Amino acid sequence: MKAIAVYEGGSEPVVIDKPRPEPSSGEALVRTLRVGVDGTDHEVIAGGHGGTPEGEDHLVLGHEAVGVVEDPNDTPFEAGDLVVPTVRRPPNGANEYFARGEPDMAPNGRYHERGIVGAHGFMAEYFTSPAEFLVGVPPSLAEWGFLIEPASITEKAVEHAAASRSAFHWEPESMLVLGNGALGLLTVAMLDDEFERIYCLGRRDRPDPTINVIESLGATYVNSNETPVPAVPDAHEAVDFVFEATGYAPHAFESIEALAPNGAAALLGVPGDWEFEIDGGRLHRELVLHNKALVGSVNSSYEHFEAAVESLSTLSESFLTDLVTGVYPLDEFEAAFEDDDTTIKTAVEFGAYEER
Amino acid sequence: MKAIAVYEGGSEPVVIDKPRPEPSSGEALVRTLRVGVDGTDHEVIAGGHGGTPEGEDHLVLGHEAVGVVEDPNDTPFEAGDLVVPTVRRPPNGANEYFARGEPDMAPNGRYHERGIVGAHGFMAEYFTSPAEFLVGVPPSLAEWGFLIEPASITEKAVEHAAASRSAFHWEPESMLVLGNGALGLLTVAMLDDEFERIYCLGRRDRPDPTINVIESLGATYVNSNETPVPAVPDAHEAVDFVFEATGYAPHAFESIEALAPNGAAALLGVPGDWEFEIDGGRLHRELVLHNKALVGSVNSSYEHFEAAVESLSTLSESFLTDLVTGVYPLDEFEAAFEDDDTTIKTAVEFGAYEER
Repeated sequence: MKAIAVYEGGSEPVVIDKPRPEPSSGEALVRTLRVGVDGTDHEVIAGGHGGTPEGEDHLVLGHEAVGVVEDPNDTPFEAGDLVVPTVRRPPNGANEYFARGEPDMAPNGRYHERGIVGAHGFMAEYFTSPAEFLVGVPPSLAEWGFLIEPASITEKAVEHAAASRSAFHWEPESMLVLGNGALGLLTVAMLDDEFERIYCLGRRDRPDPTINVIESLGATYVNSNETPVPAVPDAHEAVDFVFEATGYAPHAFESIEALAPNGAAALLGVPGDWEFEIDGGRLHRELVLHNKALVGSVNSSYEHFEAAVESLSTLSESFLTDLVTGVYPLDEFEAAFEDDDTTIKTAVEFGAYEER
Repeated sequence: MKAIAVYEGGSEPVVIDKPRPEPSSGEALVRTLRVGVDGTDHEVIAGGHGGTPEGEDHLVLGHEAVGVVEDPNDTPFEAGDLVVPTVRRPPNGANEYFARGEPDMAPNGRYHERGIVGAHGFMAEYFTSPAEFLVGVPPSLAEWGFLIEPASITEKAVEHAAASRSAFHWEPESMLVLGNGALGLLTVAMLDDEFERIYCLGRRDRPDPTINVIESLGATYVNSNETPVPAVPDAHEAVDFVFEATGYAPHAFESIEALAPNGAAALLGVPGDWEFEIDGGRLHRELVLHNKALVGSVNSSYEHFEAAVESLSTLSESFLTDLVTGVYPLDEFEAAFEDDDTTIKTAVEFGAYEER
């Protein structure tokens, strides 16, 4: 079968031939439909995560997949079931994080991530997976199911941020999403009903397709060149919730200044080292005197995938069509890895879904 | 009656004469026993909070009080009941924060704080308070009841930090308390049964009475001159929980580096403005990849005072005797505001308790 992989020391994805995997006991064989591309894939290609499976010289890419069960083997699935795989796998047998259904809380070294570190991803015509890591998806999501993984990232971050506010009465009305990339836009759409007022910050000038998406969702675009994060309260309002999806390190700290009293910021970006100056006294004081919280969040669990299936089901076809700017067949896969000002979200298509 | 107050523009506390207050409907008259002194009092004296009650030129100090109901008036209390007052009061009638029992979550301008901003404190022979702001205390705590307010600050901070970890299985084993002042030591003692290993960081060299207290509680003293906060994981261990009680702004950010994966830091200090450099990229990344949280916490609610009564009841007499290094009568009150290397916690005594 064909797969898209990056070789150790390589700097771009290539199509390779691999044997079709055989499901072991407890595993299903899945025929891949579509696999999304995100910033993590670009980091993997650039060598930023760097973990081919043990003893191998390449890593099959892809962690945002949707597929169809081809061979249920001895799992509870049936042939034709639509499924989305979760990403983390136990490195050597299970450990307590996996045992309690919280692989997303496992520290470094206690997990592999398919397509990212230590285990092949889903950018192949077929993949296998233990049934416990396959989430059932309704046929209506066949086209968009590759967005369930990123949506699950939002589900977890929102759950953890809300938990941090659960010791008191918290009724958030306003949200600021930092970042108008695919995850930022998806989050604006997913939380549209939860917040009365949503702002989404980016660096782009008009005309820009992401600004169109933001405004079509009824949210307000904030151009960070005109209104940096700390200026949001004066320009708009101090917000109850910040969702950081930029990986731009100053945002993690500036978000404290954008928050209203008792607000929380969910941090999701993964920046490199970067020293800079902050008014740490003011930020520390502000966190304390106004009961604010910063909550880091990475990855997601099976339950977050299930919640993401629900959330994604409520999104309009027109939003999804605007968000996904390109779905490319295998022989044009390079296009899915290109990024310009008209690109929002792309995927590679390995096969078509036919409802039974 | 006598009271200890600071005048507008004044720089030290003085004893003044005031009329004994008359309880209004719903208020009890309380005879003051003891009132603790803490860092906030020193900030108030230095003009750092600066809010005399409207139309007055002085502020009666004191927010850590214990007293005896002298006249229950039309409240449910009985004469002789031991009580501790909470600190925040609604500025003009109630507001939603007070209505839902969460005055500690009220933002600036939605509260007065007795002895701190906008309302007289408890350093007087008598004070009045609505019954809803008086917490009943068992007679066994008559001597130590002035520690209930600071203990309630710990209760709230711990509650909020734990809430931030409530979306997953969190079983913390180790805690690092930043600060060996009275609140730090009280927190070590209060959480002694909750954590298997407790570290308490300070700047003092041996011999030092706070180090003796820390070690008598079975905790480990960390000298920050030898082991700065980011070095704690290597020197000891990465900890599940950090309790910051120093007001030293770099600690708020360094605590991220002291935390184990999935850990949380409760921040309680209130520093002034202070610009300094951080490796914001590394700290941001660390928050995200290891699901860490920073949770600011200020003040406390009635329920935290009730929890503090329970917690304080479990502390040993020998610890409390070590912690409270001076209780001074009114005519020696200046001594309670002095601070040297032998001082840990002080209080002013206004009257004695006689059990009925």
